[in-house]
Amino acid sequence: MRLRHRLAAELIGTAGLLAVVIGSGVMAERLAGGSAAVALLANTLATVGGLYVLIEVFGPLSGAHFNPVVSAAMAWRGELPRAALLPYIGAQLAGAVLGAWLAHAMFELPLLQLSAKVRSGPGLWLAEAVATFGLLLVILRAPAGRAAAMVAAYIGAAYWFTASTSFANPAAVLGRLCSDTFAGIAPASAPGFVLAEVLGAALALAVHRGLGGAGRAA
Amino acid sequence: MRLRHRLAAELIGTAGLLAVVIGSGVMAERLAGGSAAVALLANTLATVGGLYVLIEVFGPLSGAHFNPVVSAAMAWRGELPRAALLPYIGAQLAGAVLGAWLAHAMFELPLLQLSAKVRSGPGLWLAEAVATFGLLLVILRAPAGRAAAMVAAYIGAAYWFTASTSFANPAAVLGRLCSDTFAGIAPASAPGFVLAEVLGAALALAVHRGLGGAGRAA
Amino acid sequence: MRLRHRLAAELIGTAGLLAVVIGSGVMAERLAGGSAAVALLANTLATVGGLYVLIEVFGPLSGAHFNPVVSAAMAWRGELPRAALLPYIGAQLAGAVLGAWLAHAMFELPLLQLSAKVRSGPGLWLAEAVATFGLLLVILRAPAGRAAAMVAAYIGAAYWFTASTSFANPAAVLGRLCSDTFAGIAPASAPGFVLAEVLGAALALAVHRGLGGAGRAA
Amino acid sequence: MRLRHRLAAELIGTAGLLAVVIGSGVMAERLAGGSAAVALLANTLATVGGLYVLIEVFGPLSGAHFNPVVSAAMAWRGELPRAALLPYIGAQLAGAVLGAWLAHAMFELPLLQLSAKVRSGPGLWLAEAVATFGLLLVILRAPAGRAAAMVAAYIGAAYWFTASTSFANPAAVLGRLCSDTFAGIAPASAPGFVLAEVLGAALALAVHRGLGGAGRAA
Repeated sequence: MRLRHRLAAELIGTAGLLAVVIGSGVMAERLAGGSAAVALLANTLATVGGLYVLIEVFGPLSGAHFNPVVSAAMAWRGELPRAALLPYIGAQLAGAVLGAWLAHAMFELPLLQLSAKVRSGPGLWLAEAVATFGLLLVILRAPAGRAAAMVAAYIGAAYWFTASTSFANPAAVLGRLCSDTFAGIAPASAPGFVLAEVLGAALALAVHRGLGGAGRAA
Repeated sequence: MRLRHRLAAELIGTAGLLAVVIGSGVMAERLAGGSAAVALLANTLATVGGLYVLIEVFGPLSGAHFNPVVSAAMAWRGELPRAALLPYIGAQLAGAVLGAWLAHAMFELPLLQLSAKVRSGPGLWLAEAVATFGLLLVILRAPAGRAAAMVAAYIGAAYWFTASTSFANPAAVLGRLCSDTFAGIAPASAPGFVLAEVLGAALALAVHRGLGGAGRAA
Repeated sequence: MRLRHRLAAELIGTAGLLAVVIGSGVMAERLAGGSAAVALLANTLATVGGLYVLIEVFGPLSGAHFNPVVSAAMAWRGELPRAALLPYIGAQLAGAVLGAWLAHAMFELPLLQLSAKVRSGPGLWLAEAVATFGLLLVILRAPAGRAAAMVAAYIGAAYWFTASTSFANPAAVLGRLCSDTFAGIAPASAPGFVLAEVLGAALALAVHRGLGGAGRAA
Repeated sequence: MRLRHRLAAELIGTAGLLAVVIGSGVMAERLAGGSAAVALLANTLATVGGLYVLIEVFGPLSGAHFNPVVSAAMAWRGELPRAALLPYIGAQLAGAVLGAWLAHAMFELPLLQLSAKVRSGPGLWLAEAVATFGLLLVILRAPAGRAAAMVAAYIGAAYWFTASTSFANPAAVLGRLCSDTFAGIAPASAPGFVLAEVLGAALALAVHRGLGGAGRAA
């Protein structure tokens, strides 16, 4: 696969992911009339369905990372050429912002927004580390052909069992930062989330190796 | 497969799809007591389940398009004989109306209705284009044997992340136009939706080619 | 497989199915506090999960019919020995009643009950015929290895898109008749439902043949 | 696979399972604002997704039991070396407590808690026996490659159709006992649950043998 095809896949896929996360959050909040649990349920189901499809569609092209810490882990393991890492991350960050704007355009909201939703504190940081730890472990150990379903199911669970609702992705942090809606995060809260995600991913790489890195089913 | 079998499959399948979409919308609205989010959740889950099953059942017979823009795209790519395109579309449109009437009959509503629900404006049109773009990309790139699950999951997500709740299908527009219920669309709003769907599908064909049209997993 | 193993599988499986349908209905109604849509959503998800598992578990033993019209259709097609039909139906009916009683015991309700919930009228009868037509078509045309997922997804959709919430099974009618709870049906309403189910199944056999009965994917 | 890798997998997996069950319960109760049905729906979906992923991830390492009665059944059948049984159970119990604490830490609750939620009485004990009977039968008879999806779907159904919301796992009882939250169980209620689970599992082994123990599909 040529690099420009791979980067296009990462950009379109990450844009799609953020459009799903943010768009379904807007729809859910509009319809749920104050029931935060029902809104998060809808947001969860849309994300699970969208993520499953995006990974199946773009996986054969680019690996369907849509996530800088996933790409960094793959580069560290030699599964992504190191020279492709920065272009991958650039495509993901650009896609995330474009996806937020696409959601805004569909719902006739101002394109340019910054979230005012503070998400901060040791519980949320721990939750983000746990969320990203789990995501990486799933990706590193998924049996062949099941990664899409497993990542989608994992994120669906993590929306609820982590106190942070599981961003687990610095590109998602950037996209959500650009949206003052249900799924948003205030810019001042972003560095804490990203740092926690990097630490969680590093821990997953270590645990994966400790469990016997080649223990993956064929 | 003989053409009359294929057309019967498209007619029955599209009727089934519209009966599911409209019928579950009626049931959901009756039971949800004003909670639009809960109603759309139920409508979504029924559509996802129904669509998955319909595509698995009728796929081996007709391809399970149930959708004129899908058939047109397949004809354009040479995967559907051009002579079959108009009969396919005729079967889909007839099936869609019959499906709406079947839902009405089951819920003891007047068979003949026209929706009064206006769905119009640039946000919704963009949403319909996005919804159809995504649907076509999923269909064009689904790995073998996964199209049914992927299309169903995609539509489930798109009910929530697109502002239009994702009709993404001119036959569905016709069927819903004939139903003044939860899933309906006013006749005056139909042309905007259909035009947006055609544009979204055309964009998907272009992007699919741009990504390397043969990038589909075996 | 010996007949006594097959009958045990039909009995245990049908008991399990009715325990799931009735038990989850009781739980859902207790917790939902008057929101019928939320109660039916929970009832639906439990049924979908339980049905999927029961078919996978008992399919290799007995075919996992759990349903007299399914067994009759299989006998008619020569896929079930005719001598096994009445024992199958007996096991299913006994299992259905035992399943209802098991649900009652778990929820500390009186074991012996009769439902007072009238479910009657042309709309509901049409809905039952449609529900059973669809169920049979799914069973007759499911690709190998996908019947469990497809039947479960279909019933999940049919709980919502048919006005009758899709019993689609005379054994389920008997079990539910024995339970004055969310999922119940009054004895006087049972004959109409069963007749509609038989007609729907017969129509499915005819349509399956009309579509080319061997059109099932390998 | 070395025993220390297997024990690490059981410990991490059981911790993950309890973190999912307890964490999603806390989140669901916080957001659901008094609607117990919506809270249990969210708790159910998170558990289903998490369990599916945990079994896929850790199955190739340890068998992904996460449950002392499952390990005991496997040892009894000769599928787990008897010398590994006590270490397995120790890892599961330790993991369950750590998982509860992890959930507490993420939601900034006191780490050390004991539940005050009494869950007792013949209906609940019967329900726990039924829940564990079903779980074991699913595990013993799942077709190859489908155990993860089937166990997850089964538990999702059992959260609703059993009156006890289906703990079905003595390690889960211990972890939930350490959490005075939505998913908790008072210490005084634990012995009744565990005893019922052991009886249900024993019955499943007997029924499995009675149905022809080798009837499992390849």
